[in-house]
Amino acid sequence: MALIVQKYGGTSVGNAERIRNVARRVMRWHARGHQVVVVVSAMSGETNRLIALAREIQAEPDPRELDVMVSTGEQVTIGLLAMALKAAGVKARSYTGAQVKIVTDGAFTKARILSIDEARIRADLDHGCVVVVAGFQGVDEAGNITTLGRGGSDTTGVALAAALKADECQIYTDVDGVYTTDPRIVPEARRLKTITFEEMLEMASLGSKVLQIRSVEFAGKYKVRLRVLSSFDDNDDDAGTLITFEEDENMEQAIISGIAFNRDEAKITVQGVPDRPGIAYQILGPVGDANVDVDMIVQNVGHDGMTDFSFTVHRNDYQKTLKTLEPVVKHIQARGIISGDKIAKVSVVGVGMRSHAGIASTAFRTLAEEGINIEMISTSEIKISVVIEEKYTELAVRVLHKAFGLEQAS
Amino acid sequence: MALIVQKYGGTSVGNAERIRNVARRVMRWHARGHQVVVVVSAMSGETNRLIALAREIQAEPDPRELDVMVSTGEQVTIGLLAMALKAAGVKARSYTGAQVKIVTDGAFTKARILSIDEARIRADLDHGCVVVVAGFQGVDEAGNITTLGRGGSDTTGVALAAALKADECQIYTDVDGVYTTDPRIVPEARRLKTITFEEMLEMASLGSKVLQIRSVEFAGKYKVRLRVLSSFDDNDDDAGTLITFEEDENMEQAIISGIAFNRDEAKITVQGVPDRPGIAYQILGPVGDANVDVDMIVQNVGHDGMTDFSFTVHRNDYQKTLKTLEPVVKHIQARGIISGDKIAKVSVVGVGMRSHAGIASTAFRTLAEEGINIEMISTSEIKISVVIEEKYTELAVRVLHKAFGLEQAS
Repeated sequence: MALIVQKYGGTSVGNAERIRNVARRVMRWHARGHQVVVVVSAMSGETNRLIALAREIQAEPDPRELDVMVSTGEQVTIGLLAMALKAAGVKARSYTGAQVKIVTDGAFTKARILSIDEARIRADLDHGCVVVVAGFQGVDEAGNITTLGRGGSDTTGVALAAALKADECQIYTDVDGVYTTDPRIVPEARRLKTITFEEMLEMASLGSKVLQIRSVEFAGKYKVRLRVLSSFDDNDDDAGTLITFEEDENMEQAIISGIAFNRDEAKITVQGVPDRPGIAYQILGPVGDANVDVDMIVQNVGHDGMTDFSFTVHRNDYQKTLKTLEPVVKHIQARGIISGDKIAKVSVVGVGMRSHAGIASTAFRTLAEEGINIEMISTSEIKISVVIEEKYTELAVRVLHKAFGLEQAS
Repeated sequence: MALIVQKYGGTSVGNAERIRNVARRVMRWHARGHQVVVVVSAMSGETNRLIALAREIQAEPDPRELDVMVSTGEQVTIGLLAMALKAAGVKARSYTGAQVKIVTDGAFTKARILSIDEARIRADLDHGCVVVVAGFQGVDEAGNITTLGRGGSDTTGVALAAALKADECQIYTDVDGVYTTDPRIVPEARRLKTITFEEMLEMASLGSKVLQIRSVEFAGKYKVRLRVLSSFDDNDDDAGTLITFEEDENMEQAIISGIAFNRDEAKITVQGVPDRPGIAYQILGPVGDANVDVDMIVQNVGHDGMTDFSFTVHRNDYQKTLKTLEPVVKHIQARGIISGDKIAKVSVVGVGMRSHAGIASTAFRTLAEEGINIEMISTSEIKISVVIEEKYTELAVRVLHKAFGLEQAS
């Protein structure tokens, strides 16, 4: 008998029929003698509907009151799922974040979980109850309703699994796991049975948006066994993708796990920058002050006392960043700016590359053979990212996927 | 400076524009230095939408889970109204029933308020805050979410006014007060500036559905000054209708306050009933066991050891009642049943009739002059109700309204 926390997203509970499907899946686990805690999101579209309603009243909705409103989305789902379970003869009980209670800090709309009182849930589980918990929400110390921000239901699931020392936290979503790359681009893309926590972070932040990064970090911190799987398939026990944290769980780990890509960025190069200490801060300080997140940063060795300084930002922030840099360029007496938003970032990810040489050269040769020019390169211990022209994205992903043999069964 | 509790129903908060209107009205009271607590219902249609959603999952929704879901309707409204107030520069704070906290018994979907912790609200009021409270909901001792049943927001308003010892509880609705009768039938119908608690009970239960009876009873019990007024007009201080509890507040009380009517009933007469003790129970016992509420009951003096026994039920229960009585009629050896659902009950209501003779005879003569036959009569200290053929309803209401001079200014 295991204690399982299952989390279902908005699409999985999008209508009555789907809620009944979730109930059936929960019941299968329950019938096998497992204790099951279910965390649910708001029905798909509901959170956006509520936010739009709030904006009709106040262009920038008051955060405290927005959380009061928006948290109702999950509250509706827990009631419906508990009903579906009871209708099928299973003992079930729903709880809001406040009822559990899940205590967060007071940062409305982006609160962080501080503690979870698991006593009530455990008592229900011991009585054979399925416990249904509203994701995404909690209360601060003063009893104000808070929400964890978008994707916060994943975090609720992982945090509950940590608090209850659950055997596994299963995140049900509309994909059946983490793939070696996007199957819409490479039909031969293969589901990974396992992926390490670090790889998952790289894959998630690089565009394979299966799990919220925060929930993965949380799982890593508390060593929660985390599995991503589809809510639309009939899963067996090793379905989906298991996210692992222990090196020794990954004996059969492939060198490369996948090829991620991201077409949401723009690149900016400040040319002819005086090569002296403090210059990076003089450029990126104002960008940060303008609330723009910078992703890749590349600076090469300078010559003649000058260098070029490049970085990427989200495309939505492209124009704002250019405007922010105008006075900066004058002030630091740089030569000028070249920039473009028709780029893509393609990344080769894998913990195996730590101990295997030649990964970078294979990647670069593969792209060169297709005549794809590399504009920027940045590496970490477990990934190599390159910036290329956007029009080559699919081609680059396909040839890299093939070059690293990812289409073969592991 | 007064402490005012205002309650706004679903129509008054039905969309963003109406919510802003409510905010403006609240701000006028607040700006005059009053402390204001606002109780709101769910936006119109929302509660029905949620119940329909629940029924898609479970034909008879689990009451605990239904309350979890349905209580979200008011929670959305409190957030929106607090935003509207804050957007206009007024300090405001919303509270769910659980946050207040409003403790009820554990009777899901029809809970009764046991106690209200008013400390938090009072602290906010003392800081110049407008407090916005979700109507219709509370929590039981164990922290489960409960609802008070339809119209429960009125009860929340009155209960909060009682707990806070408010100077007045204002129930804003889509009518501007209690009228001498339905203005759609009698255009000369006049708004009553005051009505006694007892008259209000008779008027409400007889079809002038302005306020929930339970909330009026609650107001009577705790001597809450209760006013019904329109949320769509600009009201001055003595707008609407004040419901009074002290006889001496009603020095200028008219003899008759209004003419109420009800077309939702059906009449049933069991004929030729043996006139012996226990016979009323033998007839009405099975009817009550079938969960049918009986309204009027009339039994006249019998002769030759036989009598006729008549009563009215809601039309929805008409067929069920007839079926229930079939074996009863055989068992008590009554002659048979005559019945009809094309009837109306018309009532003359007024505390003044206690001390004025001739009210009944005026009513009966007025109806007789129009050729309207009276099928049943039932009286209390402050009302006379008659059952007539349904087709005469409007005529009867009009002539009685005129006969008692209700169209004149008081």
